[in-house]
Amino acid sequence: MTDLPTTTERTDHPAPAGEVLEGYLNARAGAFLRALPLAVGEAGSRTGSLPSAGGTGGGQGVATGTGELLRCVRRIGGALHTFSPVFEPVWAEETRTELRWLSGLLAQEPGYVRRSARLLAALDSLSETDPARPGMLAGHAGAPKARALMERQLTLARTRAHTALLQELRSARLHALADRMTLLAGEVPVRPEGAGELRPRVAAALELLAAGVATLPPARAPYGGEGLHRLGAVPAQGVAADADAVVALDDAPWHRVRILVKRARYALEVCGASLAELDGIDQVLDRHQEAADAAVTVSTAARTPRITPATAYVLGVVHADQRLEVEAARYAFGHQWPTLQHHGWHEWASC
Amino acid sequence: MTDLPTTTERTDHPAPAGEVLEGYLNARAGAFLRALPLAVGEAGSRTGSLPSAGGTGGGQGVATGTGELLRCVRRIGGALHTFSPVFEPVWAEETRTELRWLSGLLAQEPGYVRRSARLLAALDSLSETDPARPGMLAGHAGAPKARALMERQLTLARTRAHTALLQELRSARLHALADRMTLLAGEVPVRPEGAGELRPRVAAALELLAAGVATLPPARAPYGGEGLHRLGAVPAQGVAADADAVVALDDAPWHRVRILVKRARYALEVCGASLAELDGIDQVLDRHQEAADAAVTVSTAARTPRITPATAYVLGVVHADQRLEVEAARYAFGHQWPTLQHHGWHEWASC
Repeated sequence: MTDLPTTTERTDHPAPAGEVLEGYLNARAGAFLRALPLAVGEAGSRTGSLPSAGGTGGGQGVATGTGELLRCVRRIGGALHTFSPVFEPVWAEETRTELRWLSGLLAQEPGYVRRSARLLAALDSLSETDPARPGMLAGHAGAPKARALMERQLTLARTRAHTALLQELRSARLHALADRMTLLAGEVPVRPEGAGELRPRVAAALELLAAGVATLPPARAPYGGEGLHRLGAVPAQGVAADADAVVALDDAPWHRVRILVKRARYALEVCGASLAELDGIDQVLDRHQEAADAAVTVSTAARTPRITPATAYVLGVVHADQRLEVEAARYAFGHQWPTLQHHGWHEWASC
Repeated sequence: MTDLPTTTERTDHPAPAGEVLEGYLNARAGAFLRALPLAVGEAGSRTGSLPSAGGTGGGQGVATGTGELLRCVRRIGGALHTFSPVFEPVWAEETRTELRWLSGLLAQEPGYVRRSARLLAALDSLSETDPARPGMLAGHAGAPKARALMERQLTLARTRAHTALLQELRSARLHALADRMTLLAGEVPVRPEGAGELRPRVAAALELLAAGVATLPPARAPYGGEGLHRLGAVPAQGVAADADAVVALDDAPWHRVRILVKRARYALEVCGASLAELDGIDQVLDRHQEAADAAVTVSTAARTPRITPATAYVLGVVHADQRLEVEAARYAFGHQWPTLQHHGWHEWASC
């Protein structure tokens, strides 16, 4: 337990774990119940068409109610996971399953909005013809067609996600989850014997994160170290059938670390604490995930039947560009992680 | 003249400039005359077909006689340029023009051999299916077709260059140049009043290099600083019609600096001096030039009529990969140049 965080603002008599958790979950469940009708209203009033790329960067595509609902869902789920010994186990496990389902449902549409904004901005930048900021695809005949293809496919995906969301927001499953949240807003089913201290569980979440980071391949020098040819691909376990599967194997440990970062953030939040460095790393890994997902989207779009070679060529460039964003995010992570370990790690506020 | 190099091994009575230059040029012209028949024999015995990629990396594709001839041509031309006030001006200008012509002729075929090796190695690495070192195009259907297309086009280009070389090696123009070299091996046409000191001319060559480097855009953070979208493109003067022209404008100042590096190297060589850091920068800028040329080759190949979208997609990825090599070379230059200025710059041997 060498990495056990030290407390900087310890009160002489910390509140009991159960009390802190109950207060936290009551508040989050209340926020869930306030955000739910807003999100339902927003989903009903949206047409499912994709907003213009300019106004949707950085998650701005998430409507207020939906965004707040997603935030509550993730935090309640995170708390139920990290502090699991505290809760009645069957109830906690069932609730987590339902929250994961809603989280996946809510995240889909804004995810497509962000991916569309990311890819169209990348393509516009690559094909920029302004002589002061020209792109490597400036004036390329395939650029407008590739743009239209990606926009069409992402709009279709977004519309499907929107329809699925509308349906599920009216489902019995959601009503049952809302009922669970109504109960949680008043009373948290804790195990009397499990309400120990919060601090060791937060420390354990941070240790799990450190262990996850230890599974990542060693940081590479900028521009690939051993050459640029394997954009984003490093030794991976298992045999993959195609390029997307190979790259998915390569990305998997990073995606796992991203989940561990979020759990650590939410665990700290229960204690009213936060680490700026951890928030920064969370954003870097969000970027990593979004670039990796965008690369798969481009690679899929390139398999559309009857596209022209010029379109396919542009998609190849955009694919490489997104894998390069993946590399850039890993490089940024390699810089930020040691800072977190040497500074922020030991400075989180006491519980 | 703040950057004027200081001498570290000054002899009390340095040899007169004319004498040193005459000795250097006599020796290089003699080497030219010995290498010429070897190069002619090599060109006649080669079939013009492309050797396998494995054995041609790093300039090994240049046959011994041709390589030695090219080295002599470049060094004699460099000396005539850098120490021009020493020579009879009309003779020097005419000789330099003919040497430039021969240099371009000799460099073409080995250039295509290296470019082929570079691009096929990049494609093989990108489409590597070994689970321990998978590439982002592993198993992609377009990879073998793209490989065959690039190999076919580069073999054709190489065969054309070879035919042109064979023709010109028998031309009256080459015989006239050989006659000039025969004269130069015995006597150098110097201006009696121009034979001053060599050192200020070498210093001037280094200063021209520093001035050229000052025209380069400021070094960027790894992975593009402001984003990865403009792979290798930075503010460029002028308006370009297409993407290749835009990127050529972007590369131009780097290619100019590469020439200045070679002139500085050859100028030091006249004085029997060398700077390891300068040689390293020369290699980095050779890599920059070769990656930039390779990117244009790929972009041209992608405009071949009737290729499949899968082939075009792979070419798009390879194009982006080569522009990334360009960025990597610039990044390496940004690291190595300050080292040269702070260490090697003031340490070259005295003339």
